[in-house]
Amino acid sequence: MTSDPDPWPDLAGRLTPGGHVLPIRVYFEDTDFSGVVYHASYLRFLERGRSDFLRLLGVSHNRLGEGAEGESLAFAVRHMEIDFLRGARIDDVLQIETALADVTRARIVLRQRVRRGEETIVEATVTVVIVNAAGKPRRLPPSILGRLSASATE
Amino acid sequence: MTSDPDPWPDLAGRLTPGGHVLPIRVYFEDTDFSGVVYHASYLRFLERGRSDFLRLLGVSHNRLGEGAEGESLAFAVRHMEIDFLRGARIDDVLQIETALADVTRARIVLRQRVRRGEETIVEATVTVVIVNAAGKPRRLPPSILGRLSASATE
Amino acid sequence: MTSDPDPWPDLAGRLTPGGHVLPIRVYFEDTDFSGVVYHASYLRFLERGRSDFLRLLGVSHNRLGEGAEGESLAFAVRHMEIDFLRGARIDDVLQIETALADVTRARIVLRQRVRRGEETIVEATVTVVIVNAAGKPRRLPPSILGRLSASATE
Amino acid sequence: MTSDPDPWPDLAGRLTPGGHVLPIRVYFEDTDFSGVVYHASYLRFLERGRSDFLRLLGVSHNRLGEGAEGESLAFAVRHMEIDFLRGARIDDVLQIETALADVTRARIVLRQRVRRGEETIVEATVTVVIVNAAGKPRRLPPSILGRLSASATE
Repeated sequence: MTSDPDPWPDLAGRLTPGGHVLPIRVYFEDTDFSGVVYHASYLRFLERGRSDFLRLLGVSHNRLGEGAEGESLAFAVRHMEIDFLRGARIDDVLQIETALADVTRARIVLRQRVRRGEETIVEATVTVVIVNAAGKPRRLPPSILGRLSASATE
Repeated sequence: MTSDPDPWPDLAGRLTPGGHVLPIRVYFEDTDFSGVVYHASYLRFLERGRSDFLRLLGVSHNRLGEGAEGESLAFAVRHMEIDFLRGARIDDVLQIETALADVTRARIVLRQRVRRGEETIVEATVTVVIVNAAGKPRRLPPSILGRLSASATE
Repeated sequence: MTSDPDPWPDLAGRLTPGGHVLPIRVYFEDTDFSGVVYHASYLRFLERGRSDFLRLLGVSHNRLGEGAEGESLAFAVRHMEIDFLRGARIDDVLQIETALADVTRARIVLRQRVRRGEETIVEATVTVVIVNAAGKPRRLPPSILGRLSASATE
Repeated sequence: MTSDPDPWPDLAGRLTPGGHVLPIRVYFEDTDFSGVVYHASYLRFLERGRSDFLRLLGVSHNRLGEGAEGESLAFAVRHMEIDFLRGARIDDVLQIETALADVTRARIVLRQRVRRGEETIVEATVTVVIVNAAGKPRRLPPSILGRLSASATE
């Protein structure tokens, strides 16, 4: 927001050799009356991880939505397979790990994992496409395809 | 969705002499680890009540957003004062009561109450304005103003 | 809440020959800036459908949590496979269809579908288990197993 | 989670002379179809700010819930007055500022502000109490009262 040095350098997590990691704190909003994190909250966490992975590769939801690639575009999840293995709790610090599994002009496949220390809380495989304002699938812009492919071979 | 008789006649609640009432079930998603409904969930419930009150008066978010009044418009909450008096719990059936307190070209003021049987769970006074896609406040369209005023004098 | 006739008879949807159907309205809270329903919102909708299916079979989250089966129990999602096929929009009325695919002492498998009229918006296969307050899997109480099995053979 | 140096030193924000500041990124989950942040999302942001302010003062939701003060306790919002002044958007970085306005044995009053750079997005005054598992108000534990009072006079 300013030209000063970034006061919150880790806000978008960090790129890793295999992809990206984002720390997340569990707050009241994420839990349910059973005492653990509500299962759909993990999808929000995974989406933050994907967004920040793309952000650190230089991809902006905001600019995509404003038509930077010719028309208004947004990422959309098409398919997800997810295992809920353990229950995270209030105050826990989780790490959201995201790795590129496959990318083509039509879709991106990501492997994601929610960890608490050495424990795996959730594992997911997520297929993402890009759609226009009418919801029609579009080919992945070459700049995004290039950045993702480059990240995978690093 | 079809021209058949409406299969879910009460889905948007009912108009009442003083305004509107909407029943709401408390689900997992609405609660937090403390065992009761998460405080921000009530704002979602209140918004559903306001939306369905307007819906039964003939106001559509969808058509407003698509520019039915000349430009893309959406309701926005400007001010809220809210008392959280009791904690609702999973499986509870709540009633969201909405009454018009005041309406001008610039803003709508609503009194809202979340009830469980005879108990008041939450009380709120909410000021709503209408904004365009750039977030600029706009005058309330005459058709909406007219419908709201008419509802108040019934 | 009262002994009067139920003022909102359809609030929990309806049992169907194959399972259960619940109508859901799309509100502001369910959408995101891309203009359609946020993908994780469908998991909330599906959970409402499962909860109300169980409710109409006589299973109460509240009583389970309070130890009606000997210790505090809650349902937990263990696995989910989900296809997001179309984007629902604000004001849409969706139907959440839930059908029992399989049930054993260890887990319940449900097929679920989110429909808008004749269109399929989302399809999911969901595996649910029951856990105690410490998060340990427990055998499904015989009363719940019996009710589910009976519903499947109707 | 480990005894290594904290890999994410700013995850809970920072104590400031007047209170606390927490950076927050706006993700898909926080926005609605009108293109800006859904109004109830700000309550989630404010709650994160309050939680992390308390966390850095040494107060743990987890330990309170487990009975560290004699019985299971949790914070609950009792009253809120909130102005929604501008609309934040996807990808925005916001700062949640929290300052103690007043504290007694019965309740904590906090002034909170959501900023985007120099702009004020939301302002709120929040009254928080502490309740037991049955939802009954309890006196603020002396250790929490002491830590809050000390923070105010620093």
